[in-house]
Amino acid sequence: MKFKAAEIANLLNGEVKGNPDAEIWTLSKIEEGADGSISFLANPKYEEYIYTTGSTVVIVNKSFEPSQPINTNLIVVEDAYSAFTVLLNHYNKIKNNKTGIEEFARVSETAILGEDIYVGSFSYIGSNVKLGNNVKIYPNSTISDNVVIGDNTIIYSGTQVYEGCEIGKNCIIHANVVVGSDGFGFAPNPDGTFEKIPQIGNVVIEDNVEIGSGSTIDRATMGSTYIRKGAKLDNQIQVAHNVEIGENTVIASQSGIAGSTKVGRNCMIGGQVGIVGHIKIGDFVQVQAQSGINADVKDAQQMYGSPAINAIDYKKSYVYFRKFPEIVKRLDQLEKENKQK
Amino acid sequence: MKFKAAEIANLLNGEVKGNPDAEIWTLSKIEEGADGSISFLANPKYEEYIYTTGSTVVIVNKSFEPSQPINTNLIVVEDAYSAFTVLLNHYNKIKNNKTGIEEFARVSETAILGEDIYVGSFSYIGSNVKLGNNVKIYPNSTISDNVVIGDNTIIYSGTQVYEGCEIGKNCIIHANVVVGSDGFGFAPNPDGTFEKIPQIGNVVIEDNVEIGSGSTIDRATMGSTYIRKGAKLDNQIQVAHNVEIGENTVIASQSGIAGSTKVGRNCMIGGQVGIVGHIKIGDFVQVQAQSGINADVKDAQQMYGSPAINAIDYKKSYVYFRKFPEIVKRLDQLEKENKQK
Amino acid sequence: MKFKAAEIANLLNGEVKGNPDAEIWTLSKIEEGADGSISFLANPKYEEYIYTTGSTVVIVNKSFEPSQPINTNLIVVEDAYSAFTVLLNHYNKIKNNKTGIEEFARVSETAILGEDIYVGSFSYIGSNVKLGNNVKIYPNSTISDNVVIGDNTIIYSGTQVYEGCEIGKNCIIHANVVVGSDGFGFAPNPDGTFEKIPQIGNVVIEDNVEIGSGSTIDRATMGSTYIRKGAKLDNQIQVAHNVEIGENTVIASQSGIAGSTKVGRNCMIGGQVGIVGHIKIGDFVQVQAQSGINADVKDAQQMYGSPAINAIDYKKSYVYFRKFPEIVKRLDQLEKENKQK
Repeated sequence: MKFKAAEIANLLNGEVKGNPDAEIWTLSKIEEGADGSISFLANPKYEEYIYTTGSTVVIVNKSFEPSQPINTNLIVVEDAYSAFTVLLNHYNKIKNNKTGIEEFARVSETAILGEDIYVGSFSYIGSNVKLGNNVKIYPNSTISDNVVIGDNTIIYSGTQVYEGCEIGKNCIIHANVVVGSDGFGFAPNPDGTFEKIPQIGNVVIEDNVEIGSGSTIDRATMGSTYIRKGAKLDNQIQVAHNVEIGENTVIASQSGIAGSTKVGRNCMIGGQVGIVGHIKIGDFVQVQAQSGINADVKDAQQMYGSPAINAIDYKKSYVYFRKFPEIVKRLDQLEKENKQK
Repeated sequence: MKFKAAEIANLLNGEVKGNPDAEIWTLSKIEEGADGSISFLANPKYEEYIYTTGSTVVIVNKSFEPSQPINTNLIVVEDAYSAFTVLLNHYNKIKNNKTGIEEFARVSETAILGEDIYVGSFSYIGSNVKLGNNVKIYPNSTISDNVVIGDNTIIYSGTQVYEGCEIGKNCIIHANVVVGSDGFGFAPNPDGTFEKIPQIGNVVIEDNVEIGSGSTIDRATMGSTYIRKGAKLDNQIQVAHNVEIGENTVIASQSGIAGSTKVGRNCMIGGQVGIVGHIKIGDFVQVQAQSGINADVKDAQQMYGSPAINAIDYKKSYVYFRKFPEIVKRLDQLEKENKQK
Repeated sequence: MKFKAAEIANLLNGEVKGNPDAEIWTLSKIEEGADGSISFLANPKYEEYIYTTGSTVVIVNKSFEPSQPINTNLIVVEDAYSAFTVLLNHYNKIKNNKTGIEEFARVSETAILGEDIYVGSFSYIGSNVKLGNNVKIYPNSTISDNVVIGDNTIIYSGTQVYEGCEIGKNCIIHANVVVGSDGFGFAPNPDGTFEKIPQIGNVVIEDNVEIGSGSTIDRATMGSTYIRKGAKLDNQIQVAHNVEIGENTVIASQSGIAGSTKVGRNCMIGGQVGIVGHIKIGDFVQVQAQSGINADVKDAQQMYGSPAINAIDYKKSYVYFRKFPEIVKRLDQLEKENKQK
């Protein structure tokens, strides 16, 4: 889709300086601009690029005073950065405006469908599924029987939602996510084999949650595994059965939370972190990447290490770990001195 | 599906106290009970909940003597816990009783199909595939040419099985698992590029294995990668080419085993563990979460750390690591004393 | 498919000793040989197996002089090892020679298709997609709108490529990979919730790249996330938005690279490594498994630990870490001695 500079200026309450008919079809950084792209200049640090950019249009602040001649078209606005964000969101909305049920989709007759939904080819909508208004299911996804998905939620391709799980409104579930697979529960038999403990609960994902591609969230043994509203999970996160992830908690890629652990609200958890089962992490906790949490953590603590301790303490100890050979030499020296006495 | 209390009592060899026509359609914990749910009370610790539960029916031990009035219906059995387990399994079986080949499934004419199988929409059954009796393939899975799957095995949606792999009886393979992708094998060229080493082996998964969602198991370069009978793998496990995972070994989420390593039987391996290639882990070995094993391990060892050492030794050393600043202060003090002499 | 010994000898410029009509349909190691398989003997260490092998045919060097009677058929060549590699590649090519568009594939009318392509059932080729010659898309994959894929590239089943990404020539993308999911970018609101930052860039994978099953590669916020030519990524790798992985760099399983980090060329990165965002790793860098890189690394460094330091230093310090209880005892002893004076 192409837009004219004048149309975009209109959207942003801005004014074109240059050719109002200049055509735009993509967005780019000012230093990577090419024919057909629109960029912005907000930070004076990047000013040099506006004199050489290949972008067809650049959005600038009203206050911007060029110090050299400019060869591109400008859109002048009050605040270039926030205008560009408006544009980004607009662009994103246009890109994701698919609607309708494509050929080779399989929608059960008992499913209840909201308005303006999209179901891509090869997506499976099971019995008694409820899809809210404006829900988008991209191709190759399976929404199993009795699943409920709220308004405006997007499920990208290849995502598998098991029977009976619930996903709230305004969520984004990226590609190849699994929601509701069985929790990892086995009872040992005397002969060393294991008996499967049936996992009959579900997963409840509340509103405004985003889950990154390749993540897996297991259903509860009984009851529910919860991802509370506003939580943001990066790619390849593992959430075990009966876990609860608190409101607005952010978890970076490849972290895993073991069974029945409760993570509080507004926590920031780094990448590749492991959290053992059956513990309680407070609110506003921060965990450094690659840490291993093996005990309860109080509110607002900062943790680091495996097993994790207070982050500042860990860093102090690690400084000495790095100097360990030198420290042992000092010990050798002391022993030598003591022997000579 | 709804059941009457009397029907369930009959299944469990129990006796109804209350309304035999009370209707049940789900299971729940006694403290989370709601209309239509059945719960159990076995542990006296939870007795208080039976007087307030919202569950329509509660299964109790014959020996249970209420100390307050009860407002729900009871099913009285010899052993409430094991009766509930029977019910769980029954419930699970009913939930997973799909049969038939759904529309938009693609089953090769040369595939050999057992009785009572289920092939969901958008699942692909390749040439010469053999599916045993009662095999269930959920939607959006690919069972490539020449794959063999034994009786009663369940493959959940989005799972991809490459050409020529073998999966035994009574296995459960969760969603978005990959079985049989190429091993990671490359030979360096003098110019710094790499030549792919063809990976022409396969993966053999024996009977009674469960594999968690998002796990990946590579085919052998030649020969087979083996997951021996009764092994249980959690979500997002990585098993490289030519690895062998022993009988009844249990591996927690996000662990990875590098190429050609042999893990013994009845091992317990924690989450996010890494095991290097070309080593041998004995039987009954236990590995703490986040450990890194870089050398052979004898039978029945307990390992911890990265690189991993004996678990007790690791914990001892880690206690001192935490006290490192204090230890260095003691060293400073000794040096000071020695200088003063 | 079956081949006769004479046909294979012809392919390898070798000579049959034994039955030229012996039939072969698989390859195996000499020690695992069975009826219908062909093996090779190059390393004299394995000579014993040739006298007992079950293989129907064994490829041997011209220089090989048997010391006992041989019961199998031989193909005599100049160099048995390289002849076997030729055979492996040949075998692999035959196995992957699918062409055509299978039933239940969904190819947009606006897609531009090269010659001899394969699109498996339940694969989705979106609007304006360009597929080069000989591209193979296995079942259950989604190639979204405006994606470009170069000649000879193979996309295995269940792989999801988001809108507008580019994949070069001669690439192999294994099953259940995600290319182009949104980068993990959020701006905090004063009330503790997060605002999504639209991710409108793409992913560019250059020629000769291989990506292992279950890996996830996020699109750039703006611009591109790059996987440079000849890079090899193992299974379950996470590449965040705006990352660049250099030419011929090899990354082992379950490693993750955070946003905007640039990894140089010809690096070797072990398994389960974490690299923080916004840093620069030089060329020819080697990183030990499970390490955590949290700062820039110069060319040709070897790193280890979390946080990672020079690998030799890490190993030295770790030796003392293991001896920590003993070191503290020495300190106790010194303090005791000093007190006694």
